[in-house]
Amino acid sequence: MSQSCISDLVVSRLPLYLRAMDLMIDKGKKSISSHELGKQLGFSSSQIRKDLSQFGEFGKQGTGYDVGYLSEQLRRILNVNHIWDVALVGFGNLGQAVASYSGFIHRGFRIVALYENDPEKVGSKIGDLVIQDISEMVEDIRHRKIKIAMLAVPTSEAQNTAKTLIQAGVRAILSYAPITIAVPNYVRIEYIDPVSRLQQMTYYLE
Amino acid sequence: MSQSCISDLVVSRLPLYLRAMDLMIDKGKKSISSHELGKQLGFSSSQIRKDLSQFGEFGKQGTGYDVGYLSEQLRRILNVNHIWDVALVGFGNLGQAVASYSGFIHRGFRIVALYENDPEKVGSKIGDLVIQDISEMVEDIRHRKIKIAMLAVPTSEAQNTAKTLIQAGVRAILSYAPITIAVPNYVRIEYIDPVSRLQQMTYYLE
Repeated sequence: MSQSCISDLVVSRLPLYLRAMDLMIDKGKKSISSHELGKQLGFSSSQIRKDLSQFGEFGKQGTGYDVGYLSEQLRRILNVNHIWDVALVGFGNLGQAVASYSGFIHRGFRIVALYENDPEKVGSKIGDLVIQDISEMVEDIRHRKIKIAMLAVPTSEAQNTAKTLIQAGVRAILSYAPITIAVPNYVRIEYIDPVSRLQQMTYYLE
Repeated sequence: MSQSCISDLVVSRLPLYLRAMDLMIDKGKKSISSHELGKQLGFSSSQIRKDLSQFGEFGKQGTGYDVGYLSEQLRRILNVNHIWDVALVGFGNLGQAVASYSGFIHRGFRIVALYENDPEKVGSKIGDLVIQDISEMVEDIRHRKIKIAMLAVPTSEAQNTAKTLIQAGVRAILSYAPITIAVPNYVRIEYIDPVSRLQQMTYYLE
């Protein structure tokens, strides 16, 4: 099936399958059945089989999925069989936390550039990275051909910053600002908004 | 329609509608059409009308939605017309960032307890809160009847900590650990995993 026929909902589950495979590898597990994987992830085994079958034949009747092979294939499908360079814009509390998160590199992403407009922060070194002035952002991103950015700027600046990033060539944005950002259809955008997730749960609470 | 008939997918969109209404209020806007709201959120106007109609009749032909009224109603539907007490477990880099995030209180949540197992951190004061030893967690949560927890512990401790929280009476968990956690069906769990969101986008990148 061609890539464009696969629903966003299926694609959104692939990282969870990959995450589960990598956890299995860490535990030294060699194979897993769709039933067992489903139990772990809270999905039905038929959903898992259906999702994965859209990309090829990964499971074997009776023995289930080869964990190492499926991990490798999911990495290929998700395009994270190499490391992506990522720019981080905004270095307030949130940006600092994102920058210090150690979970990116093993899963395909490396923050290679930090941009901030506070002159007191610009020029400081964070690990190997120097915080750059946001005025250098467009040229720098263009020059380095960075395609992915994480947005940790104040809500009021999120839409404009996204626009600038896209002009510079960014094609995927992960925004931490609690606002829906308009992007052209050739750009992907995803959001991290913990409060929306909390509200989604309080709906069900008494 | 009774609450149990409404799909999780519809519920997951309600916080986005509320967020948009509150932004409109900030901008002094009094009403909005489903078409305009849809354009802002990247949904079709018919989807918005269909979603909201499951909870009552909020829009008026010709004038659209009354922003203040819809905001109030969404708050009631999502049970955030009052402030929820939230416990935060884990006070490493991530937990510190979560604790310092100022976006919770205006949207229905207040962190009232911090638990950590690092003896060097226990006893420190963060704003008005004292970091408590994780050994006090169960009794404290039970005593204070806290129903919501955010989990910022290392991946290897996430499942066990969730189990303990549930035993203490927590019924909704927002986990920042990149691992799927098994919970009984009377408990809600949501995840914040920026890498999964990034991988979901790289799927579409060349």
